[in-house]
Amino acid sequence: MLPVKDRFHLPEGVIYLDGNSLGPLPVGAAERIEDVTRNQWGAHLIRGWNVDDWMGQPLSVADRVGKLIGAPAGWTVLGDTLSIKVYQALASAVMLRPDRKVILSDTGNFPTDLYMAEGLINQLAQGHELRVVEPDAVADAINEELAAVMLTHVDYRTGRMHDMDAITAAAHAAGAVMIWDLAHSAGALPVDIQASQAEFAVGCTYKYLNGGPGAPAFITVRPDIAETVAPALSGWLGHDAPFAFERSYRPAPSIERFRVGTPPVLQIAALDVALDAWEGITIEAVRTASIALCEHFIAEVEARVPGVTLASPRDAAQRGSQVSFHFEQGYAAMQALISRGVIGDFRAPDIMRFGFTPLYVDKADVTAAVDHFEAVMKGRLWDNPAFMARGRVT
Amino acid sequence: MLPVKDRFHLPEGVIYLDGNSLGPLPVGAAERIEDVTRNQWGAHLIRGWNVDDWMGQPLSVADRVGKLIGAPAGWTVLGDTLSIKVYQALASAVMLRPDRKVILSDTGNFPTDLYMAEGLINQLAQGHELRVVEPDAVADAINEELAAVMLTHVDYRTGRMHDMDAITAAAHAAGAVMIWDLAHSAGALPVDIQASQAEFAVGCTYKYLNGGPGAPAFITVRPDIAETVAPALSGWLGHDAPFAFERSYRPAPSIERFRVGTPPVLQIAALDVALDAWEGITIEAVRTASIALCEHFIAEVEARVPGVTLASPRDAAQRGSQVSFHFEQGYAAMQALISRGVIGDFRAPDIMRFGFTPLYVDKADVTAAVDHFEAVMKGRLWDNPAFMARGRVT
Repeated sequence: MLPVKDRFHLPEGVIYLDGNSLGPLPVGAAERIEDVTRNQWGAHLIRGWNVDDWMGQPLSVADRVGKLIGAPAGWTVLGDTLSIKVYQALASAVMLRPDRKVILSDTGNFPTDLYMAEGLINQLAQGHELRVVEPDAVADAINEELAAVMLTHVDYRTGRMHDMDAITAAAHAAGAVMIWDLAHSAGALPVDIQASQAEFAVGCTYKYLNGGPGAPAFITVRPDIAETVAPALSGWLGHDAPFAFERSYRPAPSIERFRVGTPPVLQIAALDVALDAWEGITIEAVRTASIALCEHFIAEVEARVPGVTLASPRDAAQRGSQVSFHFEQGYAAMQALISRGVIGDFRAPDIMRFGFTPLYVDKADVTAAVDHFEAVMKGRLWDNPAFMARGRVT
Repeated sequence: MLPVKDRFHLPEGVIYLDGNSLGPLPVGAAERIEDVTRNQWGAHLIRGWNVDDWMGQPLSVADRVGKLIGAPAGWTVLGDTLSIKVYQALASAVMLRPDRKVILSDTGNFPTDLYMAEGLINQLAQGHELRVVEPDAVADAINEELAAVMLTHVDYRTGRMHDMDAITAAAHAAGAVMIWDLAHSAGALPVDIQASQAEFAVGCTYKYLNGGPGAPAFITVRPDIAETVAPALSGWLGHDAPFAFERSYRPAPSIERFRVGTPPVLQIAALDVALDAWEGITIEAVRTASIALCEHFIAEVEARVPGVTLASPRDAAQRGSQVSFHFEQGYAAMQALISRGVIGDFRAPDIMRFGFTPLYVDKADVTAAVDHFEAVMKGRLWDNPAFMARGRVT
């Protein structure tokens, strides 16, 4: 769909519909990582922090991510994992609303967001409550009890998408702080975090941004908040003068206060190359192509593949860049698909999940994937020990 | 001193006395990282989490670190940064002692440890106090007010070393939880964390363990604590069943509850190779060699180099694997040394710091380093614009 499939290494015989979990290896990433390893770490040693700008990259590469989510330069920083960034946002949010004790989220949130909130509440011991409602009950649950609303924009199982602007406006009207988890949005579809006016956005970079296994997370903070809030996880690299080694913490006067410790230089190098794959490509073009792929997949599956039920919203406007189907024996069926080279994944209890990333998936891939899906389901191949014994593609 | 210098890439003309800040590139690391990048991420894609054991490595590689600090298998996990691991330990410690409000540390602690404690206290808003005393006042400051004692074992500036067993015993006698930061100890000298009975140890792996820029931190937790404490930063990979995607957090019944988010696969690959450099080498042999190098350095500098004053303990038994000297123009003098290929570093206000890592530094290197140091100081080369304009080795 987009003329950039050659910017990624895709193994022969694989149709990769799991870029929503881990994006593929970008062309040039291995070479860049080797260069950083041999010619920066190996040759410059400790001097790499300065001469190779390792210290600046969590900001400069973050700005490249920011461009894909509508965050102006200087709003975003890379580091840690998404769980940690959720915690930073949430801990800051509750400090911004000391008189309120309720954090609202929904059952469509990725579990780690809920777990981090539980842990924070347990630790604070100040009587906070995590209130978790169904996704379509969020709007009605927003009220003046809330310190914060914390939601994942696109549901990791079904692809259902929240209305970012409307929910943020409702949260703000009720006086609550808004936190968006963009794990399944960044690089998948247009997001305008500045227009939303949300205080915090967080996300990971190994899914649609193709940063590789263990790529760092990002946090985007509205500048009026970034410049004033007491940051949770006040590490030395968030200090105004980290190398002055002062006795007490003084936050940097910017997004830098959301830095914590030493950045993962090798992982950031991989991400930086991965972002090169967007050259000349707009997120709007990706979205258009993604919708076309998803619609084609749904139509073909519903016409040809027996036994599965659409779990994702039928309306493309309410769906991210993935399509999920319910099927009771979905785990085994997905294993059968994977053994044929069609890589999607499974989420309990019965979700077969397929991600569509038009940077490297085209219409012919989708048609071929449905061919395999049809064969697996019509042949009940997951029930066929001889077939399954042939093992997976590895 | 030790027959393993060929296990590291060291640039021609460089004497590297800054492995206490960032260890050099181990032989084989670039090749392993490339293999993980191309043949695991590139070829296996999402399946790498299983087929390449990316998910298990934070435990299996951690056990290799554990061997160097006296931690039995299953006591240690890798992840995040040292700042985050300090926070996890400290947040757990204060939850273990809800009736006590004082955290004791010292002025020799690395600032991020103090900053993370300040941030935690601010966030908890429960009247905790961070009490920071001089290093030699720690023993007398231990009393029954303390929830936790949090110290860095070896001072990052001077190399002064605390008596781990005695302080831990005193902390425990007073009912306090003990947290040791081993940033400048792990891989530098023998530590027996099990014998110390400390509840928590944390550290980084890019210094004496040579894991590379941004290598993950580790946390070691005494099993009775790891199996019972409510973990701060309760991320999904610390859940008892992360892939069940349950609504509520249930901690794993082990050290795994101190995992948080997705592990940095590329960085862990580098660390794993770096640990191969220890094959056939004991930490006791490294310590013996390190003391010999440090004693030689001190003797030669004091005999030949004017104007500097020893900042480290003279008694090797009270010193880690580094030697520091005070010199008012230390920053400029260190730049002059670096420009001659002798890489140490500078810590405010006036500390010239030299780390000795016998895995790749030998006696001839130390003698040669002192030759340069003598030339720089006798020639006041940092005051010589023509010399300094020749620029640094890069």
